[in-house]
Amino acid sequence: MTRKEVEKLSTEPYKGVRDFYPEEMSVQNHIWNVAREVVERYGYEEYSASLLEPSELYYAKTGEEIVNEQTYTFTDRGGRDVTLRPEMTPTVARLVAAKRRELAFPLRWYSIPNLFRYERPQRGRLREHWQLNVDLFGADTIEADAEIITIVHAILQKYGLASEHYSISVSYAGMLKETLEREYTLAEEEAVRVIKLLDKFVKGDEVHLMGDEFKKALEENMKNEKANVLYEVLQTKQFADTLGKHAEHAYMAELVALLQSEGIPAQTNIFLTRGFDYYTGMIFEVFDTNPSNNRSLFGGGRYNDLLSIFGVEKVSAVGFGMGDVTIRDVLETYNLIPKHLPKTKLLIIPHSSESIPACKKLAAKLRSEEICVALQLLDKKTGDNFKYAEKHGIPFALIVGENEQALGNYTIKNITTQDQTTLRQEEIPPWIKAQI
Amino acid sequence: MTRKEVEKLSTEPYKGVRDFYPEEMSVQNHIWNVAREVVERYGYEEYSASLLEPSELYYAKTGEEIVNEQTYTFTDRGGRDVTLRPEMTPTVARLVAAKRRELAFPLRWYSIPNLFRYERPQRGRLREHWQLNVDLFGADTIEADAEIITIVHAILQKYGLASEHYSISVSYAGMLKETLEREYTLAEEEAVRVIKLLDKFVKGDEVHLMGDEFKKALEENMKNEKANVLYEVLQTKQFADTLGKHAEHAYMAELVALLQSEGIPAQTNIFLTRGFDYYTGMIFEVFDTNPSNNRSLFGGGRYNDLLSIFGVEKVSAVGFGMGDVTIRDVLETYNLIPKHLPKTKLLIIPHSSESIPACKKLAAKLRSEEICVALQLLDKKTGDNFKYAEKHGIPFALIVGENEQALGNYTIKNITTQDQTTLRQEEIPPWIKAQI
Repeated sequence: MTRKEVEKLSTEPYKGVRDFYPEEMSVQNHIWNVAREVVERYGYEEYSASLLEPSELYYAKTGEEIVNEQTYTFTDRGGRDVTLRPEMTPTVARLVAAKRRELAFPLRWYSIPNLFRYERPQRGRLREHWQLNVDLFGADTIEADAEIITIVHAILQKYGLASEHYSISVSYAGMLKETLEREYTLAEEEAVRVIKLLDKFVKGDEVHLMGDEFKKALEENMKNEKANVLYEVLQTKQFADTLGKHAEHAYMAELVALLQSEGIPAQTNIFLTRGFDYYTGMIFEVFDTNPSNNRSLFGGGRYNDLLSIFGVEKVSAVGFGMGDVTIRDVLETYNLIPKHLPKTKLLIIPHSSESIPACKKLAAKLRSEEICVALQLLDKKTGDNFKYAEKHGIPFALIVGENEQALGNYTIKNITTQDQTTLRQEEIPPWIKAQI
Repeated sequence: MTRKEVEKLSTEPYKGVRDFYPEEMSVQNHIWNVAREVVERYGYEEYSASLLEPSELYYAKTGEEIVNEQTYTFTDRGGRDVTLRPEMTPTVARLVAAKRRELAFPLRWYSIPNLFRYERPQRGRLREHWQLNVDLFGADTIEADAEIITIVHAILQKYGLASEHYSISVSYAGMLKETLEREYTLAEEEAVRVIKLLDKFVKGDEVHLMGDEFKKALEENMKNEKANVLYEVLQTKQFADTLGKHAEHAYMAELVALLQSEGIPAQTNIFLTRGFDYYTGMIFEVFDTNPSNNRSLFGGGRYNDLLSIFGVEKVSAVGFGMGDVTIRDVLETYNLIPKHLPKTKLLIIPHSSESIPACKKLAAKLRSEEICVALQLLDKKTGDNFKYAEKHGIPFALIVGENEQALGNYTIKNITTQDQTTLRQEEIPPWIKAQI
């Protein structure tokens, strides 16, 4: 397209991404400020990186098919294959691998990157989303696993969610696949297919979702007599007992007991699997317990081998990612998004252009006392000025004219209640701070 | 590349972008926290958008050549031309155009986006950078122009820069070009070439840079006898006087006088031009006054017509962008980057695994009082634990063993001074807060 052809551009954003007007931005800031505060309380430090990464980073552990079909991957002008990161874990593994000799482990790191995936946009799935990533490197202990899950719980509590609003399902990577292969003689590819189906159908509560829909999917996928047998087997106590004999299951149970003893709504879920194949130990997902919903909100797990793709010695790691789109939906469901309150607290209105210098002086004084102040720049009627303040959510306004300049008294109007209060300049900052 | 071919990945980031380890991230956070605080004091509200934009947005005002050669532009899997935004102004114009009927003007908005350009990486020029963008819509007054420049000054002061460290050069878009065409009979393309050269050679102080190098470049570009004449003309008082007769020049002078009366180091500079062709009024740039440097740090100006590309009525606008790479260089030059101080203030060390529950309880208590606490998860020797705290910049550590649990007294060690203080649990938070 050339410049001349463009006559009138669309104001729509690119498909599947969002514009954040101040009201939406304040929700984003609320979501991340809460998360940031909690993770910093646990000793985590922020890092970041570019969203452009060499594509090889994802081929190695994500698989060629996913990179080619579900990511934004292109060749740059210098012939390099480059990808807009679809997740942060390979990036943080790269950073740790690069400086592993200088860094003092255990290492507690977090980041709030934006991530991209080329998908059909739908509820809860956009082409760009933001994600809190929290990782703990260099401590392969049950207390490290417990800390990561405790942070998840602490964040959700800080948002105002009660423990009955969510449950944390804990499992162990590979345990289910190994059991299906070894003890139920499924070929590897069959086991993988069954696990993918379980990932799709089993949400939160493992019992009541083993219904007809799952049975049908199993039949369609297995295309042999094993389907029926397997459907029955999966629901037996015997199957659960077989898994229960594994050392991994004992670990899961111990971890869950430790978490429960601290009031965290964790439970084991032997059918839980996670999409990424880099997990090597504990895995978990957070579910909304709302019966109409019952979907996975976010999750994480232990990945002790990911650094080996960089040819360096093993560094143990455990972490999770929490996306803004899903958490926002949950907070909306439970009415936990605070009302947008702009930081601007006062609109100063010049009575006439002669009053502008006095307005600017007053504004400067109040700003130096940490009050956020906007100056009206247009010559509007008094009523229109108050409407303007109201529309911007600015709670107070005052007019500066000759009288105010002469006496040093200012009449502050509360935009919502219409109340008026007359104060001297030095009384304004403490008065405004006390009102909010 | 397929998965099997990958045996050992590089830990380098993609060419021309940066990784932010916690120490670098704290510098970024310092730069943006200061800027954010200042702009919010002036009543500006934060917005954001995706970095993916339809490519048409840039063809319209940036020019096809620049889009094709200097941006990351590619075709997505759905056949859409998409660009990683190289600047934020077209995006904010799009947002304002889309909701212009609902928004109450004047509108004060800011954002801190990352921007991309495909360039040869060099000092001060990377492929990804972050930029503070501040814009004021709907007020086409001298006070609006003054406010934008006042904010620039306030931010630089808040960083600790003194007014002699920088100067703010003010000019008026189009004035120079019009003068060259009308009064010195240059063809439009000649005028454009001269202006591009002035943009390249004239930095900050307009006098001493009109040297031989500029003369030579002028000769090479003009390729006719006009070069010599023009070189002489540009330096005459007559040329300055000719410009001085323009209404635009009178406006510049008035604006500069207004700013100077408030102690802002602004000056007129008739040779200042800006790269983007959407400017319609006042333009400005900030220069480092360090004689070894004398380069443009950042700038902005008035752009009243940009919304017309969306086929909507005119909305006046003035704003600026300030990049992290250049501002960081300046702060380093003047030694104004604060030492990295992690938010984690205390390392709690279990004397043995039996002490872990007591450590976690103490940590939870301190976290609820806003102290950022890390728990040691590995069984290290006491000396190694203190070294670990030192390496992470954690200023205090304490050990929890049987005695501490029995007596409820904790001995806190200052990692830097080696001093020890014994406190009861409830005394720890105020004590730590008082130390920092």
